Amino acid sequence: MRVLLTGSAGFIGSHLTERLLSDGHTVIGVDNYISGQPANTQLFLDHPRFSFIEADVSTNMPVVQEPLDWVLHFASPASPPHYQQHQIETLMVGAQGTQNALELASRHGAKFMLASTSEVYGDPKVHPQPESYWGHVNPNGLRSCYDEAKRYAEAITFAYHRSRGVDTRVIRIFNTYGPRMRADDGRVVTNLVNQALRGEALTVYGDGSQTRSFQYVTDLIEGIIRLMGVDFHEPVNLGNPDEYTILQFAEVIREAINPQLPVVFEPLPQDDPMQRKPDISRARELLGWAPSKSLHEGLGLTVAAFRQPQTAAPLDHTAGTTLASSTD
Amino acid sequence: MRVLLTGSAGFIGSHLTERLLSDGHTVIGVDNYISGQPANTQLFLDHPRFSFIEADVSTNMPVVQEPLDWVLHFASPASPPHYQQHQIETLMVGAQGTQNALELASRHGAKFMLASTSEVYGDPKVHPQPESYWGHVNPNGLRSCYDEAKRYAEAITFAYHRSRGVDTRVIRIFNTYGPRMRADDGRVVTNLVNQALRGEALTVYGDGSQTRSFQYVTDLIEGIIRLMGVDFHEPVNLGNPDEYTILQFAEVIREAINPQLPVVFEPLPQDDPMQRKPDISRARELLGWAPSKSLHEGLGLTVAAFRQPQTAAPLDHTAGTTLASSTD
Repeated sequence: MRVLLTGSAGFIGSHLTERLLSDGHTVIGVDNYISGQPANTQLFLDHPRFSFIEADVSTNMPVVQEPLDWVLHFASPASPPHYQQHQIETLMVGAQGTQNALELASRHGAKFMLASTSEVYGDPKVHPQPESYWGHVNPNGLRSCYDEAKRYAEAITFAYHRSRGVDTRVIRIFNTYGPRMRADDGRVVTNLVNQALRGEALTVYGDGSQTRSFQYVTDLIEGIIRLMGVDFHEPVNLGNPDEYTILQFAEVIREAINPQLPVVFEPLPQDDPMQRKPDISRARELLGWAPSKSLHEGLGLTVAAFRQPQTAAPLDHTAGTTLASSTD
Repeated sequence: MRVLLTGSAGFIGSHLTERLLSDGHTVIGVDNYISGQPANTQLFLDHPRFSFIEADVSTNMPVVQEPLDWVLHFASPASPPHYQQHQIETLMVGAQGTQNALELASRHGAKFMLASTSEVYGDPKVHPQPESYWGHVNPNGLRSCYDEAKRYAEAITFAYHRSRGVDTRVIRIFNTYGPRMRADDGRVVTNLVNQALRGEALTVYGDGSQTRSFQYVTDLIEGIIRLMGVDFHEPVNLGNPDEYTILQFAEVIREAINPQLPVVFEPLPQDDPMQRKPDISRARELLGWAPSKSLHEGLGLTVAAFRQPQTAAPLDHTAGTTLASSTD
């Protein structure tokens, strides 16, 4: 089938492109490189079933002549330093970008998937978070340009489903890590791995007792592919319920790279969520899906990738599995 | 000063236009009549300081050549039957409409006010609701096209304030009633008054124990005018903390119009908030403001207006007070 993927040059977009191509599909990637990386487009440019359009989907969604089976809307700055730097663009890609993608899907009679986020739960008062939880989000705090944009994106996706009959899917992606994360994305995984690889002290914000669930990227991609195969419109959490405190995580990384490195503590940023853990009952029942990569295994693959220049990563077009899992 | 007011033909927009004109200001009204009423424009068309542009601010914000001191963004369907009928337009006027109004303010160096809503609190778990409460909103329920649009509107207003330096105000308007409400707006006040005036049974949804605070429109307008006079960027609740159950309200109306009328009960709509009451400490301290009209007084003025055709309402351009309060 033919798939248009916005945000194709992002971390997750690049892995989703790889998997779709390897499953035999045709991918039209779209990205404006606000936070996506040209190297992630370069990876696929020689592939006969991949094409790329550089465009801002908030203001200039490409007109596509060919039939489309799916529009997958994954475009958005997603890490705090990127969306803080691009507050208005982040808000726009949640609103105008999502609407343009829904209109494209509607015109083509294509199915539509929104990449939403665990950030719609904000600083949750329910733990773990099922999809039925309405969340606890500051509507005008420093994170609101991302959180509220994604909540709006869900609302307009449901509005197009209800009032225009678009066949929609909504995933809520929890913290995901793996090869091709941007080294400067400011996320805890990349920060700690980068610091450890440089032989620096590992920085932990707050006292490190806040928890995160860490999902390896190929687990997420598997959940996405499975959800494309079922007829289901409510949001679906995709994340790893294995929970680590930030401090535990720093220690796993330290042990993996250099046990001699010290840990230093800095103040928590405003509205930083204190804990986040998915309830994945819905994905288990609906898709028979659960994450399979352990943190230690995923971390090994990630550290290996971070030791090499990203553009040098080989791409096996013939394998049925993804790049990352083919290096197990 | 010169003010551009989006949603000028709406219920609140018409009262705000009247007050601004009566205070000596120049008003450029903008409305696309999705839920506003041409009669509310007709009221002011002969006024030398009023002009009107029929336009959809989500897609065609007017270009204004004259200097502007304020952009007041009040455009949006606001009653459940209207925003349910226009889900996508409601989402758009919260996103693109707010952004276009912010851009207009930014280009003119004008101040900006967003008409937000108590709906950002959703079905609140904190009672009464202070501005610091983050709310409890279903991001993809039937009301989300309105609630999430307004939360997004707040987020983008703060983003323009933080990243572009626009001088912004955000008000959260609680239930407001008075003359010029649309007879078909489906709100509890108009429904009950209309039923009573037609001699029909009064319909109460649920068991009638859910509460609402009812603010008379001129009280709201006074709060808006006062907030325009201070330098304050955080949201400000404007509502009447006097709390009535829906059933009490039906009884007040029944007694005022016809004590013989029966009350009938029907099921609650999905996600209907069970209680809503403003904490107005901030407006009291910041603006010296509190509502002054009692429910009985405001109701009398509203019933009197509903007994007459709206276009026949007289307009006193010379009075310093509003139409409604001049009929005390």
